[in-house]
Order: sequence, then C-alpha cells, then structure tokens
Amino acid sequence: MPEFRNTYAGNPLDRVAAERRDEEWIRARLEDPTSRVLALHRLTAPLVERDGALRLVWSPISELAWRNPGSEPALLGVQDGGGARFAIDVSETDEPDIALEMPEDAAYRDLREAAGVLDADDAGIAAQARSLIDWHARHRHCAVCGERTEAVQGGIYRKCVDCPAEHFPRTDPVVITVVHDGGRCLLGRQAGWPAGMFSALAGFIDHGESIEDAVRREVREEAGIEVREIRYHSSQPWPFPASLMIGCLAEAETSNINMDEFEMDDVQWFTRAEILEALDGPAASIVGDPARGGALALPGPTAIAHTLVRAWADSAP
Amino acid sequence: MPEFRNTYAGNPLDRVAAERRDEEWIRARLEDPTSRVLALHRLTAPLVERDGALRLVWSPISELAWRNPGSEPALLGVQDGGGARFAIDVSETDEPDIALEMPEDAAYRDLREAAGVLDADDAGIAAQARSLIDWHARHRHCAVCGERTEAVQGGIYRKCVDCPAEHFPRTDPVVITVVHDGGRCLLGRQAGWPAGMFSALAGFIDHGESIEDAVRREVREEAGIEVREIRYHSSQPWPFPASLMIGCLAEAETSNINMDEFEMDDVQWFTRAEILEALDGPAASIVGDPARGGALALPGPTAIAHTLVRAWADSAP
Repeated sequence: MPEFRNTYAGNPLDRVAAERRDEEWIRARLEDPTSRVLALHRLTAPLVERDGALRLVWSPISELAWRNPGSEPALLGVQDGGGARFAIDVSETDEPDIALEMPEDAAYRDLREAAGVLDADDAGIAAQARSLIDWHARHRHCAVCGERTEAVQGGIYRKCVDCPAEHFPRTDPVVITVVHDGGRCLLGRQAGWPAGMFSALAGFIDHGESIEDAVRREVREEAGIEVREIRYHSSQPWPFPASLMIGCLAEAETSNINMDEFEMDDVQWFTRAEILEALDGPAASIVGDPARGGALALPGPTAIAHTLVRAWADSAP
Repeated sequence: MPEFRNTYAGNPLDRVAAERRDEEWIRARLEDPTSRVLALHRLTAPLVERDGALRLVWSPISELAWRNPGSEPALLGVQDGGGARFAIDVSETDEPDIALEMPEDAAYRDLREAAGVLDADDAGIAAQARSLIDWHARHRHCAVCGERTEAVQGGIYRKCVDCPAEHFPRTDPVVITVVHDGGRCLLGRQAGWPAGMFSALAGFIDHGESIEDAVRREVREEAGIEVREIRYHSSQPWPFPASLMIGCLAEAETSNINMDEFEMDDVQWFTRAEILEALDGPAASIVGDPARGGALALPGPTAIAHTLVRAWADSAP
C-alpha cells in the first residue's frame, strides 16, 4: 500500500539529534540572525493568509530576549536551507500580539479549526510545537518527587533539580479503526458531537497491549463486536494534546451491536451508499457544526477517521 | 499479512472498562475469594516452573490486608471463567518471599530474562503488571504542581490531591525497522552490547511525527540511509518500562552508511546468507551473552527485532 500522508504528518524540519546534544551549539543558534521563533499563546499559533493558504508567522530571534525575558525557547529543528526554528510559550501575557512583532493581518488561531486551510508543511511544524509547548507547561514538576524540573538540550527533555529523574516528552498511542463486514462499516458517536456525526471507533493503547490487542479490546468495549484480519493503514500525529493516531481497518466476525452506553451515544452499521453520500456531502468537523439536520456527517479530511472511511469506501467489493 | 503474535502480546485478561468505573465493584473484588494478586518486587515477578514452562504465582486476595497494610492494589482485569486479578508493589520489603505466601519452588525473577520460557499468556499479564506498577511508583507526585497524587478506579489513573490534574498511564511508541535493499539488510549495534550482536534500528517517536516520519528520521540519524516503501509488520508491548514497539520493514534508497557515532557503535549491511546463519545459530539476548566470538549474533525470538529480521530473511528474492 502506498504511504498516505495525513494532516500534521510530514513535518519538514531536521530535528538535528546530533547537534542538539551540544548546549554551545544551541546557545549560538539563539544569537544567530537566521534563527526564527514561533510564539504559542495558550496553544494557539500566529497565522497569516498568503496565496490562499494559512502560514505560520515566524519572528526574528533577536526580539526574544527583550520582549520575553525568562522565556524558555524550545528547539524544534532546522529548516532546510534556513536557520534554526524555536517555539516559545507566551501564554502569560494577555496581549500576545505584542509578545513578538507580527504582520498586521496575522492572528493567533486554534490549530484544529485552521488545519484544513493551513499549509501542509506548516501544519506538521505547528503540531510538533503545540505538543512540545503543552508538555513543557504541564511538567514543571517532577512526578517522582514533586520538586521543580528544568529544560535540557534545547527543550528535548526536562530534569529534576533535586532527584536523578529525567522526564521525556510524552506521546500517547491511540488505535482508530474502521470495522467492516464487506458491504457495511461500523461507526460510533459520542454525546455532545454535532447532530448526525459519526466517526471510527478509537481509544488509547493500554499497558501491555499490541496495536492489534488494543483494536480488539476497543471495538469489543465500545460496540460489542469481535474482529479479525486487522490491517494497519496509516498514522497521524494529533497534537490535542499529543496523540499518535494509528489507523487500522478490520473485518467484523460478529454483527450484533452491544454498545457501551457510558462511552458512546450511538453505534451503527452504515452501507457503502450511505458512506459515499456523506463523504461527498459537506464535511463535518469535530469542532464545527455540520448543520445537516440528522443526516450522516463524517469528520473532514484533516482527520485520519476520514482517510480510513474513504479507504474502505473506495475499495472492493 | 496474517497477524503475528510477538512475545508479551495477547494478554488474555478482560480489562473490564465498564465495571472498573464503579468503585463499589472494585471494593467488592478485593473481598471476593476468587480474586488473586500478583506481587511485584522491584519489578521482578514471582515465577514457578510447571510442566516445562514458567508460570506466574498468584496469591489469595485475603492475604493482602494483613501482610501488606497500606498497599495500593491495581486492578489488571478479570480472568475468563475466574476472578479479578490485581497487582501490588512489595518493593519496600527486603524479604519479598514473605510479602505473600508462595510455593517453595517459586522465586522472584527478571521478566526479560524469563521471557523465553514464560507461558505466553502469563507473559502478557506480566507485561501489563510490570508497566503499571512501575508507572504508579514513578508518579506519586503531580507533574503540574508537585503535590501528591492518588490512584483512582482501581489504579487506572491517578489524580492530584490539590489541583484538577489527572494523570493517565504512559506508553511510549517506538519505531523499530529492518531496512533492506533486496539482498542485504541494515543492522546496528550500540556500545556495551555483547560482542557480535546487531539488531534493527529503533527510536522513540517524537512529537508531531507519524510512524513513517519517525522511521525515516531514525534511519537517517543512526545510519545516514534514506528509505522508501515503509511497511508495518507487527507490534509488541515491551514492558521495560512501557514501550510499544512498532515493527516495520523499509526499502533502502541509498547505500552509503554514515553512522551517528554518539548513538551507535557500528552499523553494517548483512547478506541474507549471514542473516540466515545467525538466525539458526545460538540466539543472542540483549541481557544474555552470545559468546560467539565476534560472529554475527541476533536478538532471540522474544524480541520483535528477531521477528522482523526473520520476516525479511524468509521473504523474496
């Protein structure tokens, strides 16, 4: 199967594993005029429209020191043919527009809402920056002893100021599966989603589970359906806050739905005709409002759920 | 491709997602005579030989209270046709043999060393228990504010006693890849490994990376090789302490090795004949000593690296 590039995948930065071990090299990058900084404000990013697409707004590194004293820049990587790229967190200010100098038509925007019109390479960089900045913000203390932690190696990890513990950024693997029985596929919805919206069944991988173990458990828990022939399709970094979505297709071995009423609002089988109509109709968005009055709505193309449903609908028989 | 069950996968317990939301149900299980407890001592598990295989030693739940006051039992799940299964941490004692009653011929053993002779279902349960107990032990404090945390829902997560933060068990996704160019495959070794031992290239998935992004980056960083046609093969829970190994095969696009001398001790291309000889020879183990005097040694069959190398060697051309 050819590789499928989901939204947020394919970040073009070189993460410079070798160079970033050298604190001197990182310090030099902070004074290098070719370096640039992305400022995140409460996990929103500064975006500007250029040639029909939204692009990230990068600021000169020289502004960092005097506008944001005490900020802890995290190295994202190096742009091909360009300089180093850092992210900083400017959440403490109520006026992020002056945290760094920005074009007049730029604005801080939610990355999930912007994903559909954000340049593909910039979406990958934004995903990395959002997950990393959020992780730093939520790990100021050591989970082992409770003391303060500090960033090391340009923000690649944190270490405790008191005990020997080191803390590395966390990524949570999630399985997301389209179950099918040939002519129909199984989708579910959670309470609070827009009317008519259904998506693929998903859940976090537990301790001591393979990907396939987790697929079987999640589908059994949420829908009461047994599956076989689990096939990996593609994966997607999902920076809300830091998941790795592992997309699978699986064949149903049973057909009677026995839904978990605590986790799910509804689980149903849909025919290929219903799915094709919904895929060609107005795309739903987990944050948007499909306003389709109860007809089936599916997540839009920025979600791997869409990729998986499309892969099933476009295939045999 | 048929599903491949790696060691530690296929844990047979029902994790009872619905029942474990009910604290009353969990309390009742702690007094149910059909419930059993697995005691881990400094991450080793009590094992006993029965019919040629090592089995986990389970203890009656009734012993918990009086022998281990204050212990925090973590619910693993429910055994098909049996009772609830818990794990507890008895690391504080220097005499774990009396923490719970055990058969005379049982002993606490390292799970990595025992994996090759441990019953397959028990290996899956042990993997879950080891990752979970280690996670609880290292998350007694809140990473957000530093205050104490306490276990909730039978140990399925922890919450801060002071701030609103909830902390869920952590699983770290890792890519592990056998790169090949048709007739040869690319393996590397790290400093400190037994003489002659090589394995597949591996590394943690970073923020904002798909599985395929991480494969490309790790192979480029460690070996200076570019790859294409990345194919998922199988996955493995690796409880040292809590990784999810995501096994892939990939075609090499380039052939000149440019090794990262900080991370790697050696990276080489091996012919199919060399690989087949090593696979049929004495298996190496990351914890064992192959004592093969410099000849190529590969990880044993309990490691997904072995599965991947075997899959490549047994396939075309």
